[in-house]
Amino acid sequence: MRMRKKSWAEPFLTEHDDVVIASPDSLKGYWKNRLNKQNLHVEIGSGKGDYFTLMAELYPEAGWVGIEKNTNVAAIAAKKAVESEHDNQLLIAQDAEKISEWFADGEIDVIHLNFSDPWPKTGYKKRRLSHRRFLEVYEKLLCENGQIIMKTDNRKLFEFSLLEFAQCHFILSDVNVDFRAEDHPEDVMTEYERKFVDLNQPIYRAVWTKLSK
Amino acid sequence: MRMRKKSWAEPFLTEHDDVVIASPDSLKGYWKNRLNKQNLHVEIGSGKGDYFTLMAELYPEAGWVGIEKNTNVAAIAAKKAVESEHDNQLLIAQDAEKISEWFADGEIDVIHLNFSDPWPKTGYKKRRLSHRRFLEVYEKLLCENGQIIMKTDNRKLFEFSLLEFAQCHFILSDVNVDFRAEDHPEDVMTEYERKFVDLNQPIYRAVWTKLSK
Repeated sequence: MRMRKKSWAEPFLTEHDDVVIASPDSLKGYWKNRLNKQNLHVEIGSGKGDYFTLMAELYPEAGWVGIEKNTNVAAIAAKKAVESEHDNQLLIAQDAEKISEWFADGEIDVIHLNFSDPWPKTGYKKRRLSHRRFLEVYEKLLCENGQIIMKTDNRKLFEFSLLEFAQCHFILSDVNVDFRAEDHPEDVMTEYERKFVDLNQPIYRAVWTKLSK
Repeated sequence: MRMRKKSWAEPFLTEHDDVVIASPDSLKGYWKNRLNKQNLHVEIGSGKGDYFTLMAELYPEAGWVGIEKNTNVAAIAAKKAVESEHDNQLLIAQDAEKISEWFADGEIDVIHLNFSDPWPKTGYKKRRLSHRRFLEVYEKLLCENGQIIMKTDNRKLFEFSLLEFAQCHFILSDVNVDFRAEDHPEDVMTEYERKFVDLNQPIYRAVWTKLSK
């Protein structure tokens, strides 16, 4: 997502260090303590933050961490988290490439990947967040029976992901090739997602569970 | 598929015993010999036979066996196989429930499931041809690295199948959630399938490979 540089973005992120974690490695192994929650959900590539902040309101009993590398976009997400009535939301405004430095092995319960960049060119497939080099990292960071939930409008990314997960230590535990054909009150629909739904484009969704050793 | 009883169906099937195998158990372990081919493809629920007879013409180097329990429908398939220029097509006009009595372990290279009855009611899910009780049988009948290829217009059957295979000894090796969005000259499109494509309905397709022991 490209947008004009926001002059207020960097200062806003710095100022709200109760919500925007500048040194996430300092919380490694302590995220649940910091959030005072039993369950930790992490959204990688949280964009403007609609998904994880709305889900955090729907599931206040869990802790929610958004990761977004684009400073301008992350600032918009931070604003939503700061203004929320719930204090179960944290944000990391940095590149998720370093995620294994920020979370301890087995610390995360659920990883969410929503409308991730499909990187359509084959030469860039290593950058897709469901590439096996990431799946191997997620596997380490997830707890026993931890899950990864992916939602996307991108057919090719979804197909790629199904094949990629099948090659790693995950088992497909739920799948929908037209997720919004039925009601799913357990999941929030962001404005971004609604645009696809209004155009009658299918939303693809899958849940994978980490295989036991 | 329901249709009026065809008086010619039974006699036609009986008469053409070079193509319609009345006692498939007698060929157990000898299908490739009988067809004089190195590879054996079996379509379960072949309906009017368009798919396996067209595929048999596209891949004349392989042997193709269709299975269809409805006598009236099977007779239409038999007619196509009888009239084909190629002699690599055989038909079993019986219920595939008995398939393990007809084929030896490891005898089949590829099993095809096309537009199978979705049996939408939960109470009947055991009848779906991708229910695990069938997958366990297919696994035995398939050779090492043998494959199952499924194509369907039915979203719910496809989702069910992805989950069911994930629980059995197969690995997803190819998947398309809108198979006809691209050209696939390696696969024939029957008139039945074309109806869905003309209505802009997605065709779902997956290939699973039997896991090595």
